[in-house]
Parts: sequence; C-alpha cells; structure tokens
Amino acid sequence: MKSVTKYLWFKTKSKRELIRITEEVKKVVAESGVKEGLCLISSMHLTSSIIIQDDEKGLHEDIWEWLEKLTPYKKDYKHHRTGEDNADAHLKNLVTHLQVVLPITQGKLDLGPWQEIFYAEFDGQREKRVVIKIIGE
Amino acid sequence: MKSVTKYLWFKTKSKRELIRITEEVKKVVAESGVKEGLCLISSMHLTSSIIIQDDEKGLHEDIWEWLEKLTPYKKDYKHHRTGEDNADAHLKNLVTHLQVVLPITQGKLDLGPWQEIFYAEFDGQREKRVVIKIIGE
Amino acid sequence: MKSVTKYLWFKTKSKRELIRITEEVKKVVAESGVKEGLCLISSMHLTSSIIIQDDEKGLHEDIWEWLEKLTPYKKDYKHHRTGEDNADAHLKNLVTHLQVVLPITQGKLDLGPWQEIFYAEFDGQREKRVVIKIIGE
Repeated sequence: MKSVTKYLWFKTKSKRELIRITEEVKKVVAESGVKEGLCLISSMHLTSSIIIQDDEKGLHEDIWEWLEKLTPYKKDYKHHRTGEDNADAHLKNLVTHLQVVLPITQGKLDLGPWQEIFYAEFDGQREKRVVIKIIGE
Repeated sequence: MKSVTKYLWFKTKSKRELIRITEEVKKVVAESGVKEGLCLISSMHLTSSIIIQDDEKGLHEDIWEWLEKLTPYKKDYKHHRTGEDNADAHLKNLVTHLQVVLPITQGKLDLGPWQEIFYAEFDGQREKRVVIKIIGE
Repeated sequence: MKSVTKYLWFKTKSKRELIRITEEVKKVVAESGVKEGLCLISSMHLTSSIIIQDDEKGLHEDIWEWLEKLTPYKKDYKHHRTGEDNADAHLKNLVTHLQVVLPITQGKLDLGPWQEIFYAEFDGQREKRVVIKIIGE
C-alpha cells in the first residue's frame, strides 16, 4: 500500500470564495504514483468546506445566495459571546459537508464530466489548511 | 491490496426518483472478494446523490417535500442563463451530499439495521453514472 | 494492509445530544497500530450523525436552534403513519450527513486545530451504534 499526505494552504482576500483546486489535486494524484485507490480531500477548519460542483459562474452565485439565506450572517449567534463573529460560517460548513472522497482509477482522479473540486471559504482572510490523503497501490 | 471499480448507469423516467441500490452494491462487494475494506459510492453528476435512508414510502415523501421547500425549483436561478433549468437539482445535490463511504467487514457491507442505499435523482430523464470503488483485502 | 473495526454504543438520556468522541476515536487509532491510512466514523442509524465541529457550548446551541428550525419536530410527517414520530431526526441526519472520513498520518488522527468529533443524536433514549473502520499500514 502507498500513501501520500499533502496540505494546501489558503488565505483568501474575501470573506467568501470558491476556489477551484481540481488541477492541484490531480497533480498530487499524479505525483503519488497510485494507480488504484481513494483520495480524501478535507478542510481542516470548521468554517470552510471542500465541495464538488460545476464551474459555472451563475451557479456559484445561486449557491452563495441560497446558502446565505439558509445560514445567514447575523450578530446574535450564541457563539459570538466568545468574541467570534463566524457562527454562520460554521453552519455553512455543516450543511455543505467539510470533505469529499474521490476514486483514483488507472492513475487518475475518477471524476464525472462536469465535476470540479472547490475549496469553499466561508470566513476568509485567515490562514486555512486542507489535507489531501491518498491511499492505494 | 485489492481494488474494484464499477459503474452503475441510470436513466430515470421521472425528474425525481429514489432508487434502492443496496442489492447491487452488495453484489459488487461479494464479487470483489474483499473481506475488510472501504466501499465508496459516489454520484458522478452534480444533480444526483447517493444517500443512506430507511426504505419507507412515507419518509421518502417527507424527504421530497422538505427538500423541495428548501431548494425550490424555479425559473430565475442565475445558472439558467446558460440554457439549463436545473439549478435546484445542484442545490439538492449539495445539501444531501453526493456520496457515502461504507465499511466492508468479514466480506459484507457493514450496514445498520435499517440502512438502505439509494440513488437520489434530482434532474432525471438523462443518462447518469455512479461509481463504486472498493479497496481492501 | 491492516484493518480494524470497532463499534461504539450510545443510549442517550435526552432526545438530542452532542457527545464528543474524539478521545475514543484517537484510542482506537492508537491501538490499531496503523501509521498511514483512513478512518471512517459512521452512524449505523438514520436518526444520528457523526459531525466535526468546535467544542464550544454557544456554537452547539446555535447548531441545535438552526437545525430545529430547518427540520422541525412536528406531528404530521407522513413517516409517522408507521407509528414512528422521528421523521425530523431522519431529516437532521440527511442534512448533517451520517459520517466523516479522517486521515491517519504518522500514527495519529490528522485533525485541524479546533476539529473535534461528535456523535450527534437526534432521536435518543434508544440504543444506537457507530462503526469505526480503519484501513492502512
């Protein structure tokens, strides 16, 4: 069994961003030499997620609008008694799920035709980390 | 390490359907010969998901009703400027999560007593694909 | 390849609870002897989930309040025709996702700085089970 661990760092300019990382993940898979296996891509923070979506600008706007309505930024979350102001970002992480697991088949990420991997930042302008863990052969 | 990759194809008659695939996944696990491992079952599209739920008709109606209220079908999503009309299906995929990972223990899918695996179609009448990836020994 | 399967049992006093299980999962990882691999932690029931969140009381209150608003307990779900009264708990399981997969790196769970693992019970006072499955080397 082979295994590879790689960390990606992000510090976004905006509070909220969708950053396509498909190419970076593909590179890690290629360098791993793993032909058949699984690739976990997971946020190491509670205010960002890894999601799979279409890379279409209009759809991204729809997602942000829907997500903000579902988990609105507001002052009066109880979490904010700690001095934080990002409870909405925790809820956004919870609803979108922090991670995905992708198959590696014949040495390549086995993605569907429109599937792109995104780092979804819900409380940016801070250093955040994503772990990529590959196991296989 | 053993690995098996299998694709399931779907083309539903309706726009929205829940199709039980537990038996098909169990068959792939049995044929793999893997005794201990992990089984990823993941939608390769952005408008369908794999979910684990109880196979109870009333509950399925509750899920559809709740999901439609949460991510309503409507005309004016920005994604629809591309000619598509399925932005709600993308949101349904996002909220239900596209995939599950199940343990294989003593040669069998290690499911709880009422856990059944479903292919959840949110924008059917098109050809869609699901990947099953097993790794283990 | 090594593999370890372990079950955790829960029977909560309350209908809804968040129980931190990070320490128990770390113990299973340590005992497994696996240095590099993946650790799946998954609810075997449809009315509880495994989630990763911050262990902060105010945030937990925010999560429960938000989740109850999103998937309210009420009498008139169609699932209740079966005699059950927990359709809201099924929806809570669906929206929070039943499971997480975590990397094991250098013999340890590779968690971010504030990531704690929780068993989230949505319909307690019954015996429930969680599976931990580790594969690696």
